[in-house]
Parts: sequence; structure tokens; C-alpha cells
Amino acid sequence: MSDAMKEMKRSFQDYQPKHFLWEVSGNGRVATIRLNRPERKNPLTFESYAELRDLFRDLVYASDIRAVVLTGAGGNFSSGGDVFEIIEPLTHMAMPDLLAFTRMTGDLVKAMKKCPQPIVAAVDGICVGAGAILAMASDMRLATPEAKTAFLFTRVGLAGADMGACGILPRIIGQGRAAELLFTGRSMSADEGQAWGFYNALHAAGKVEAEAVKLAHSLADGPWFAHTMTKAMLNQEWAMGIEEMIESEAQAQAICMATKDFRRAFEAFAEKRKPAFEGN
Amino acid sequence: MSDAMKEMKRSFQDYQPKHFLWEVSGNGRVATIRLNRPERKNPLTFESYAELRDLFRDLVYASDIRAVVLTGAGGNFSSGGDVFEIIEPLTHMAMPDLLAFTRMTGDLVKAMKKCPQPIVAAVDGICVGAGAILAMASDMRLATPEAKTAFLFTRVGLAGADMGACGILPRIIGQGRAAELLFTGRSMSADEGQAWGFYNALHAAGKVEAEAVKLAHSLADGPWFAHTMTKAMLNQEWAMGIEEMIESEAQAQAICMATKDFRRAFEAFAEKRKPAFEGN
Amino acid sequence: MSDAMKEMKRSFQDYQPKHFLWEVSGNGRVATIRLNRPERKNPLTFESYAELRDLFRDLVYASDIRAVVLTGAGGNFSSGGDVFEIIEPLTHMAMPDLLAFTRMTGDLVKAMKKCPQPIVAAVDGICVGAGAILAMASDMRLATPEAKTAFLFTRVGLAGADMGACGILPRIIGQGRAAELLFTGRSMSADEGQAWGFYNALHAAGKVEAEAVKLAHSLADGPWFAHTMTKAMLNQEWAMGIEEMIESEAQAQAICMATKDFRRAFEAFAEKRKPAFEGN
Repeated sequence: MSDAMKEMKRSFQDYQPKHFLWEVSGNGRVATIRLNRPERKNPLTFESYAELRDLFRDLVYASDIRAVVLTGAGGNFSSGGDVFEIIEPLTHMAMPDLLAFTRMTGDLVKAMKKCPQPIVAAVDGICVGAGAILAMASDMRLATPEAKTAFLFTRVGLAGADMGACGILPRIIGQGRAAELLFTGRSMSADEGQAWGFYNALHAAGKVEAEAVKLAHSLADGPWFAHTMTKAMLNQEWAMGIEEMIESEAQAQAICMATKDFRRAFEAFAEKRKPAFEGN
Repeated sequence: MSDAMKEMKRSFQDYQPKHFLWEVSGNGRVATIRLNRPERKNPLTFESYAELRDLFRDLVYASDIRAVVLTGAGGNFSSGGDVFEIIEPLTHMAMPDLLAFTRMTGDLVKAMKKCPQPIVAAVDGICVGAGAILAMASDMRLATPEAKTAFLFTRVGLAGADMGACGILPRIIGQGRAAELLFTGRSMSADEGQAWGFYNALHAAGKVEAEAVKLAHSLADGPWFAHTMTKAMLNQEWAMGIEEMIESEAQAQAICMATKDFRRAFEAFAEKRKPAFEGN
Repeated sequence: MSDAMKEMKRSFQDYQPKHFLWEVSGNGRVATIRLNRPERKNPLTFESYAELRDLFRDLVYASDIRAVVLTGAGGNFSSGGDVFEIIEPLTHMAMPDLLAFTRMTGDLVKAMKKCPQPIVAAVDGICVGAGAILAMASDMRLATPEAKTAFLFTRVGLAGADMGACGILPRIIGQGRAAELLFTGRSMSADEGQAWGFYNALHAAGKVEAEAVKLAHSLADGPWFAHTMTKAMLNQEWAMGIEEMIESEAQAQAICMATKDFRRAFEAFAEKRKPAFEGN
């Protein structure tokens, strides 16, 4: 590998986060990020926001990680921004600092959307506030029947306009349902979440994380370079007209057709065996 | 209040419309607009279009009204533009006058989207043509099981492209379902409306308006300044990319964090009591 | 008809395609396009892509065809791009040729979206790859309970970003469901397709095409000039803000109000008879 490539490719096998857990499976190709303050239902703090932002930004350069699972410890996903550790200090801040904070949290969502790895959220129990945003910003979402998902910013006197929710949530569940959840802050049940397309599937509490990891492994075993293009385009085309979408995809798919993985897939198909993808 | 502020803040307690009813509840903070020609199923006329447009424009400057309920008298929502009072005259007009008309009706939808108060539609019985548009342009929608909703412009030889329907309806119920309703003009049942996310919930005919008023009161009791920001952003971000959505919300939420309502909500939470919001 | 108009209006009654079937019904106003290589489940080839693209482009100038049904012969819709006739040659092509191919297939979707006739897909059996794209690019979709729809580009090592799928599919079924289908390539059942709004309705295998033709006939009997405007606006407004949508529709609807069809519809209504539309 040239020096130039080394700047763009780093291993994340030994990544050691301070404010959450990092577990690698599937021959080092799938990472599980586990929010890990179960006694408080895995709240976010200034420090964990920042560390998650930095991690997802750095994953752009990962040489090994091909898919990510995002989950929480102890039967809950996340209780969101901690009321005493985050909300209280914010109530004293001057505008420039408030904006620095809302931009940092927004940068976490941007980084999740920009990292090439598909992100699968595995949601059990409480999934509220910034926790609900992390689920929303993931590419796919599995949940347990007990998952309670609420965009409850209104409960602390704030707008539903947090980290992109007023723009992103309507694209997932429709404008009318998103309006209700964001205006009222009410909890969306797991059944509603599945019926509305927020959750891709429901699994029992003992199984949901295993199912998310299984899905992530299958993506890592698949044409993962092409998956990075699928993710980029799913997020890139929100504000394009149909003509522009189609030209963009003509270019994106031509890039994928120029990879050896495309030839590998064809040869495996012709020989009736499973292809082995190399991402080139 | 300074003279400058007086220009921007007016009371609507004594507002007296000519072509519909105006009822205020919840300590003067919630207004119910009731279309009121029940013998004709509450059709719209040139005059009622214009008066509704002017009202929603003026509500930007309301000092008191925090949420609006939109409903109809006598067991129907609205039969839309009256065939003899509106359609017939239009069939004789020159192009500039036709455009003046379609722009005026479009301006009503723009005004509903731009007014800061969340609008809850309570729909029973007939909800067709421009009536269906008024429901669509509301922020949330409750209906009875008997509600019949039809975008029936095609029945009078016109396009489904009326007052924003070809752009707004697909964001609520999806592009395929919207195409069917707009091409065929067929009636959407209340059950379909709920399953597709057009209606947020169904309630019995005797209860639907009370439920809409209850929802409006709860919004008026909540952080209503923040709700105005939620509404603005829900409507502002339709054609933005993800990056722009997130930056826009970082600014919008920082504004809400700079309000005393945010501190009030935190203090009430810490003291385990209900917060009282003042909109500042 | 002036010479100038003749350049813009051509009859398609005797159109003779080489790579699919063309059947005209409903007094020559509805065309059925039938993919017709049933022994291979109606795959697409370089030639049939190009011929379909040219046909949909030319339909802009049709003087007679008012609605189109798209279906497949022999109990399947389409197996998509043929693995040996299309995929294999692509794995040897240089980038400019790859881009020429992805642009040509994208041009087919653009042409389907730009042709003025509403397109109704009647889907039975296999509907995968480029076949699923043709269904997606239609305006309305009917299917049988046995329809299996899969965006399986990932199975051949490619991205879900094909012919606009990453932009168009999320607008039909929501961002989360589209992500799952495009990342995994899994089959969407007919029941899922209906629940998610991809299919407008399900009908038994022996009836689905007749229902699609019936719908197309009813559109051809309706205000078909106005329908062309509905279609244009449904596709034109994807990346507009609400203000721009409403102004665009004010213009589009004013055009329809200036037609005699509008007056014809009013007169028929007043006289309680069925209107006869002439598209002017």
C-alpha cells in the first residue's frame, strides 16, 4: 500500500472508545457500537456525542469495517441527552455556545449519513430524544415489541427540529405521522413503528441484536463496495429532481460495473457458487 | 408593548368572519374555524377562499391564538369549490383571471403552511375537492370512520395539480397512492386514510371534534413558541439536502434553547411539576 | 391539421415493435406493451431497452394513445437484464461504454416519466432487477398475490443505485423500507407491496391485466389532457419547496381551466350526464 493510500485506510480492530463499547465480529468486518450506561438507560453526554461524531467521521477511512450495528446495553437503546448533564448546562449558555452544541449534535447525524458503512440499529426498550434520532439516522432499524420510541424534545420546551428530524423523519414515515410525533412528543409503539416503516422488522428482546448482527454480516459478506454506493445515493438524492437522480445513478452504477466484484459476481452466478467480494 | 411590537401582535378574540364561524376556547388560545353552510355540505366560494386566506395570513401576527382547529358544520367537512358558484364562472374566464383564481386558492394553502399555529383538521362526512386540500394542508388530521375524502378535480375535467396536491399529498401517503387518488378522483375511505398516514387517528362522529380541540389545547399548553418552529421546519425542509436540513435545524433549535421556556421546562422537570410556558 | 401540428401528432395504431408486443384497445386509445419472451420470464436486452426508450420518447407525440398498460407474457412480469446477454458483456466494457449503458437504461425511466400517458403496470410472478424498475417507474401498479418483486442488483455485485431506484423507491414506500430492499436485494411479497403503497391493489392472476386495462380505459375516457398535466406535475415537483409547488400548480391548473374539456365537464354535470372529453 502506498503512503497516500495509508492516509485513507486505517484498521479499526483495536479502536478503544472511552464513552461506549466497540465490539468486532464477522472476521473483523462488522463493528457493534454499544451505548453503555445501562443504569441511566444509556444517555448521551457532551463527551459521548463528540466521540461518536469523531468515530463515524473516521470510519470513512476504515480499511476493515464494512457494516455497523448500533445498540444499547441492559435492555434499552438510549434515553437521549441527559437532563442534568446536558439540558441544565444548555439553559445557561449564550447563543454562540448553543449553536456550537446543536451543530455538534447535527454533525453526528451528518457523520452517520456520510460514513460508507450501512448502520443497522437494534432497538429495545427506551429509545427517546437524541436516542430516537440515532435510530432515525441509521440506515435500517430492528426493534423489540417493547421498544418505545419518542421524539420528546417538546417535553423539554424545544422544537421537534433537532438534528434533522423535521426533514428526515417525514421521509421515513410520512409527513402527517412525523408531524404528530414531533409536535406531541408522544411515544410510537413498536407495532406502529413497523406498520409505518420506521422499523424494518420486530424481533424478541433476546434476538433483536443477533438479527441485526446477522443482517450486518450478510451485508459485509456481500458486495460491500457497492453497498457504500447504495448508501451514498440513498442519502444524496433527497433534493434532486428525477432527471438528476437518474444521471447520478447512471454514474454511480457505472463505477460499480467497473469493479472486479461485478465480474466476480457474474462468474460465481455462472458457476452456481457463492461469490467472494473484495471491494475492488 | 412598544408601538413596533403592536404592529406585530394583535388579539383575535373578537375576530368576526363573514363566511365561516370563529370560536375561541382554552382561555382564548385555541380557535376553531367552522365552515358553516351545512345545507350545501360547506362548499367554498370566492369570498370564503379569500377570507380564509386573509385570516391565515393575519394569524402570523396573533398575540393570543396558539393552535387552530379546522372543521365543518352539520356532519360534513367540506364539499369544496361550489360547482355553480365557482366552477361555472371559471369556465367563462380569460387566462389572466383563471391564473388569478388558482393563485388565490394556492395562496390559502401557502398561508396555512406559513401561519405559526399548528392546524388540526377534524373531518367528518364529505371532504372533497378543495375540502380535501384544506385537510391535506393542515398539520394533523383526525377523522370519523364515515369520512369520505376525494381529490376529485378530475371529475370536473381538471388536473390533480390543484393547490399543491401533486407535491404535498405524495409526501403524506406516498407517490403511488397519491397518483391513484389524483388520477382517478376516487374516494379514500377513513380506514385507508388512517392506514396510509393521511389521518392520524379515527374517532366516532360525536367525538372527533372534541379530540381535535383536546389535541389543540395540549399544544397550546405546551411550548408553543417551539411548536411554531417545529411547524416552520416541517414545511421548510422539503427540498433541502440532508446537510442543509441539519444546519437549518441547528439554528432553529438554538433559537428555542435561548428561550426562557426551555429553562422553565427544565426547572419544572427537576421539581416534578408541570411547566407553564410563556412563549418567550 | 397544419404541417406544424403533424410534426407533433402521430398515430400509433400500426406501431410494430420488434422486441415486445403492442396491442391497442378501447377505440385505439389504450396501448398494452407486453414483454414477450415468456420462456426466459421476459428479460430485457440491449435491444429491448433501446426500443422501449424510443417508444416512450415517441409517445410524447402520439395523437391517439391516452394511457398505457405495461405487462409481461406467460405469468411473469420481467426477469430484468439478462445475465448472459447483458451482465456478461458489461463485465468486459470500458468505463465510457458502461456509462453509455447506464445512461441508456436511465433514459428509459426518464422517457416513461416524461411521456404524457399514465402508465399502469400489471405485475404477475417474477418482477426483478430492471423489471422491478419498470414497475417502479410506472404511475400506478396492480399485482397478483403471487408477484415477487426484488431490486436484486446487489446479487450481481452492484449498487441499488440503478435507474433512479435510490431516489424514486423511497418516495413510494418510505426511506427505511427502500433501504432494506436496495441493500439486501430481498424479495418484497405482494402483501408487503400493497401494505407499503408500492402496489395500488392486488387481483387474482386471471384478472390483474383486465383490471389494469379497465383502469387505463377509465383514464382514457376521462379528461385525458388534464391527466397529462397531473402526471407532469406528480413528477415535476419532487425537489421543489412548498411555495414553488403551489405556484407551479396554479399555472398548470389554469391551463386546464382554459380547455373546453373543463366547460364540457361542467355542462355534463349540470345536465346529469357523462361528459365526453376531447383533449382540447
